Amino acid sequence: MTITITAFESSPDRGAGLARDMRVRWALEEVGQPYEVRLVPWEKFKEEAHLARNPFGQIPTYEEGDLTLFESGAIVLHIAERFPGLLPREANARARAITWMFAALSTVEPPIVDRDVVKYFEAGKSWQAERLAMVDERIRGRLDQLAVRMGDGEWIDGAFSAADILMVHTLRRLEGSGPLDEYPILAAYIARAVARPAYQRAFAAQLAVFERKAP
Amino acid sequence: MTITITAFESSPDRGAGLARDMRVRWALEEVGQPYEVRLVPWEKFKEEAHLARNPFGQIPTYEEGDLTLFESGAIVLHIAERFPGLLPREANARARAITWMFAALSTVEPPIVDRDVVKYFEAGKSWQAERLAMVDERIRGRLDQLAVRMGDGEWIDGAFSAADILMVHTLRRLEGSGPLDEYPILAAYIARAVARPAYQRAFAAQLAVFERKAP
Repeated sequence: MTITITAFESSPDRGAGLARDMRVRWALEEVGQPYEVRLVPWEKFKEEAHLARNPFGQIPTYEEGDLTLFESGAIVLHIAERFPGLLPREANARARAITWMFAALSTVEPPIVDRDVVKYFEAGKSWQAERLAMVDERIRGRLDQLAVRMGDGEWIDGAFSAADILMVHTLRRLEGSGPLDEYPILAAYIARAVARPAYQRAFAAQLAVFERKAP
Repeated sequence: MTITITAFESSPDRGAGLARDMRVRWALEEVGQPYEVRLVPWEKFKEEAHLARNPFGQIPTYEEGDLTLFESGAIVLHIAERFPGLLPREANARARAITWMFAALSTVEPPIVDRDVVKYFEAGKSWQAERLAMVDERIRGRLDQLAVRMGDGEWIDGAFSAADILMVHTLRRLEGSGPLDEYPILAAYIARAVARPAYQRAFAAQLAVFERKAP
């Protein structure tokens, strides 16, 4: 059955690969599954056709036969359960990898997303600088703990897994910003991940969407 | 094998059941599994013994034999995979329920947690009222979409599942606040959930911890 995902028709990050369709593309490339992409223009996110796929009107979504899913974390987990290569076979190692998937989304990502809220939605507010400093402190708290946990490990918990896809993609949103530059362990982790051929193919595919639209 | 979870020795919500051990207690009650609780005092959250369970120094954690997990979402999913009753058997319905677990944690919960950040950590800041209004707008956006999706359904997607545990517990953090009062559909959803005997048992167990410590 054909797998179809949705992505921004016109990515707000100009092809930097920060939109969450990148996680799904990367997962599908890791497991060697072809997929089609339905591009959704801004003005259609809150229309009935897209809300039927995702009641919150976001991308990505995942369609395969009768099944429609949303939430990048859920989609990556579904791909990892459906095709071999993204979760350990041993039960306890598998459960730990899933724990790290949730940790990426529930513990590491929220302050990183909040940083963008401050940067873009609180621009011009009198409090922006002070709030940014507060958010960066929360981010540093998480990155400190994550870097300790990584130590000199190659991936977050044993072999490369779906957890690394979510964690690395979450961390990438900080690239070029102060907090991340203080953590060479995490910068090296990201570098290892983005060097993977599957990542490279996924990145090129989303960049091509942007370049086709660019003048 | 004995299941052991961790919880606050002294819950900051004074037994209101908003701490995330409540999700795990509720899930274990729904599937009828006994469990033990290791209470962690504030000053020990960042000590080695607890960081070995959760590198981010949070509760809850889950131990069973050789396995240690953290992240309430991952633990509830693990319980739902290990014991029957919290996920549909049919593959597509199961995948949809898991999508809703991620939606509760990644899409609905972040602005709700942010509201508490504004309330408690930005108290006294000149911007508090303006930020609270901005966060409430984001929350209303999510609740609007969620209420449309619920419609007159009893649970979020078919039968009661692990997704309802995470969604209801996330929404409960808004109880008594403006945004939630505008959504009778969601208030009724919460009321149905907390009337469940498993919820009641879990709630009583966490309240007993608080009351034992209270003067």
